[in-house]
Amino acid sequence: MDTLSVEHLLGIKYLNENDINLIFKTADHFKEVINRPIKKVPSLRDITIANLFFENSTRTKLSFELAEKRLSADVINFSAGQSSVKKGETLIDTVNNILAMKVDIVVMRHGNVGAGVFLSNHVNAKIINAGDGTHEHPTQALLDSYSIREKLGSVKGKKIVIIGDILHSRVALSNIFALQLQGAQVKVCGPTTLIPKYITSLGVEVETNLKKALEWCDVANVLRVQNERMDIKYFPSTREYTQLFGINKEILDNLGKKIVIMHPGPINRGVEITSDVADSDQSIILNQVENGVAVRMAVIYLLAQQIKR
Amino acid sequence: MDTLSVEHLLGIKYLNENDINLIFKTADHFKEVINRPIKKVPSLRDITIANLFFENSTRTKLSFELAEKRLSADVINFSAGQSSVKKGETLIDTVNNILAMKVDIVVMRHGNVGAGVFLSNHVNAKIINAGDGTHEHPTQALLDSYSIREKLGSVKGKKIVIIGDILHSRVALSNIFALQLQGAQVKVCGPTTLIPKYITSLGVEVETNLKKALEWCDVANVLRVQNERMDIKYFPSTREYTQLFGINKEILDNLGKKIVIMHPGPINRGVEITSDVADSDQSIILNQVENGVAVRMAVIYLLAQQIKR
Amino acid sequence: MDTLSVEHLLGIKYLNENDINLIFKTADHFKEVINRPIKKVPSLRDITIANLFFENSTRTKLSFELAEKRLSADVINFSAGQSSVKKGETLIDTVNNILAMKVDIVVMRHGNVGAGVFLSNHVNAKIINAGDGTHEHPTQALLDSYSIREKLGSVKGKKIVIIGDILHSRVALSNIFALQLQGAQVKVCGPTTLIPKYITSLGVEVETNLKKALEWCDVANVLRVQNERMDIKYFPSTREYTQLFGINKEILDNLGKKIVIMHPGPINRGVEITSDVADSDQSIILNQVENGVAVRMAVIYLLAQQIKR
Repeated sequence: MDTLSVEHLLGIKYLNENDINLIFKTADHFKEVINRPIKKVPSLRDITIANLFFENSTRTKLSFELAEKRLSADVINFSAGQSSVKKGETLIDTVNNILAMKVDIVVMRHGNVGAGVFLSNHVNAKIINAGDGTHEHPTQALLDSYSIREKLGSVKGKKIVIIGDILHSRVALSNIFALQLQGAQVKVCGPTTLIPKYITSLGVEVETNLKKALEWCDVANVLRVQNERMDIKYFPSTREYTQLFGINKEILDNLGKKIVIMHPGPINRGVEITSDVADSDQSIILNQVENGVAVRMAVIYLLAQQIKR
Repeated sequence: MDTLSVEHLLGIKYLNENDINLIFKTADHFKEVINRPIKKVPSLRDITIANLFFENSTRTKLSFELAEKRLSADVINFSAGQSSVKKGETLIDTVNNILAMKVDIVVMRHGNVGAGVFLSNHVNAKIINAGDGTHEHPTQALLDSYSIREKLGSVKGKKIVIIGDILHSRVALSNIFALQLQGAQVKVCGPTTLIPKYITSLGVEVETNLKKALEWCDVANVLRVQNERMDIKYFPSTREYTQLFGINKEILDNLGKKIVIMHPGPINRGVEITSDVADSDQSIILNQVENGVAVRMAVIYLLAQQIKR
Repeated sequence: MDTLSVEHLLGIKYLNENDINLIFKTADHFKEVINRPIKKVPSLRDITIANLFFENSTRTKLSFELAEKRLSADVINFSAGQSSVKKGETLIDTVNNILAMKVDIVVMRHGNVGAGVFLSNHVNAKIINAGDGTHEHPTQALLDSYSIREKLGSVKGKKIVIIGDILHSRVALSNIFALQLQGAQVKVCGPTTLIPKYITSLGVEVETNLKKALEWCDVANVLRVQNERMDIKYFPSTREYTQLFGINKEILDNLGKKIVIMHPGPINRGVEITSDVADSDQSIILNQVENGVAVRMAVIYLLAQQIKR
């Protein structure tokens, strides 16, 4: 049987193209499963998964939980608020304690860049990175590519622009890696203060003019405006951001072609995107959410196949 | 097969008498189920239910969760504290995101009047209102009526007085609708500042004298004193409330008949009701809690029958 | 079939030696189960267990939850933060409400000494004490003894020193009762301000010199330094504590024999114990965690056998 080239899912940068194809092929199967009346398979009845979320998250945590339950895995939830982290325990000790209770896979969101990689070197379990600081968010990038492939037939050769706060976005970085691996062209668009200087070294062009960026692309992946970042250091106000980088129906209708609109959520309606755009037939935002469960089932399933039983 | 006249359970005011009879007949069956050694039925193995609680709740949330698990549904819990609500996402977006993960039924508690109705107009899922602001709390009213029917044989023709803070109580309003629909007579009793003026327009008499109210009734449904409301605006002090509207054993024993005592909980012992009353054989308070699981199983089961599979 | 002499697990002091032997024999079986590929048994499909944690806990709560799930029980979680406790409800009312929903076993952690005993006198359910104030933590003591038995063949005749803050430790007290019941010798070692005067009346010797304590013992059970207790009242500073009572590799290597190192967690690495000690082959810290699940499965299973079905 086909298997992933990696032992953990720590970031897209550790994957090759075959891995992505295998994940997508497996996700195709699970997408069919979750659209059946009984949306479950008994595949992982012998696997225990711990969800360790050291940062808050709604959709990612819920999506992973559902993916795990639909695979019939045993699920344990652990959030930092209830934890021994406050008592001064190290991350490795916290996780080793959980693993001593016979946990096979750890899904972890953590505020520190590289937390997943660090953990994978020190504990005996499969690690899935559900977001590490401003670094990577690999399952989000996989579900984004999967949704483009579903909508446009393939990712190869497509032109994708990522719009917004690239500097602080793990979604942007993981998407760039995933899209390039599959042969897409990627540009980023946003305020220069929110675009990191190293981005061009990744082979990504910067386009600060929204209109030009949209005219160029097949797909616009619109990032959420993080209000807490809207200050003098990065950008004067949300209102000014909307004027320069907000997408509305008029802008889209004037393009003379129908581009695909994506958003990782949660949406600030009227800020980075208007309601008529978010709810239009060009938007695949809710498909992204639906595909997230199937893609996460695939990742978990494939890593679980490597566990000796 | 019999079916409800409604597509959601948004409030008692949308139900007819047949609906209530159907819910009670179904609850009779489930009450028998939850008193078996194995308290589960496999009925809803193909249904996923999300519990969305934007306000805290112990007994209602627990009761719904148990009802869902005993029907073998897949259950997802979501509370506002962990959520994207804080990031400025709209209620509809939050719920649509959850639904995109293939959720069939949403049980929602929300601080705003009409939140369930609003939601039912915008999303594609069955909505069960688990309390919306000061408006309705339909499953509480159903379990209250079910408990009266169990204790007294029927609700029809019975005299029920609801005692306490009617103004801010969703329990009171839903109870009034449910009791009248089944042919009971309803009075309310409490401080005039805590009784809304519109109440008489619902065909409900106001009785400000506790003794007279109790002499009249077959059943007294005693509401919890919400300490945070005991200020000069509504009522000077808890102590004064207890003197005028608190129920103790002496008052009950002087009635010359045995009335039934109900309370939706949590009880403030010694405030609206003394311990010897709460724990007496006239009290059906814990029966209400037990029946809550059976009635919620019935509501969920009946709505799930309308979902195409 | 063998049965426990008690109806609840409220503290080690209510058990006899047969009870402990029965729990350990049962835990042996479950330890084998949780090391199988499918780590579950269907034994308690007809049992509902409520975890009531009025104090935070990571490992104990997780360990109980896993134990319950691996026995196929229905599990309900209730933590004080979400609860009616804040609304002024009494503990008995809170628990009776939960029990009215057909709960068979309550696992409770509570800040008050004797909360479990109190509860067991007033409600109709099996109670398992998961820690009551500074009093007892019986399942921790059972898993500690079980781990010693596993490592050294038996507990009888062994010399165990418990090191640290004995005064505030429910782990210490439950361990003393359990070890003595099985015929071990127990000493305590720590700052005199953190050793209660009554300890000698339990037949426990006090040794304030760490080196002498370690030379005497077969097993050192090292308690966590509770930083919040390190003040002038009990001990001047963490640093001074480490100098006098901290265990490092050098101290161990100079003993001329290999003692067993235990710790209930979470560890403050570099404070009460250095990393090379915690991670050495003398340490059975993670075995304790693993055994915790098996021992808790045994306790729950044995109490459940007493429930009429």
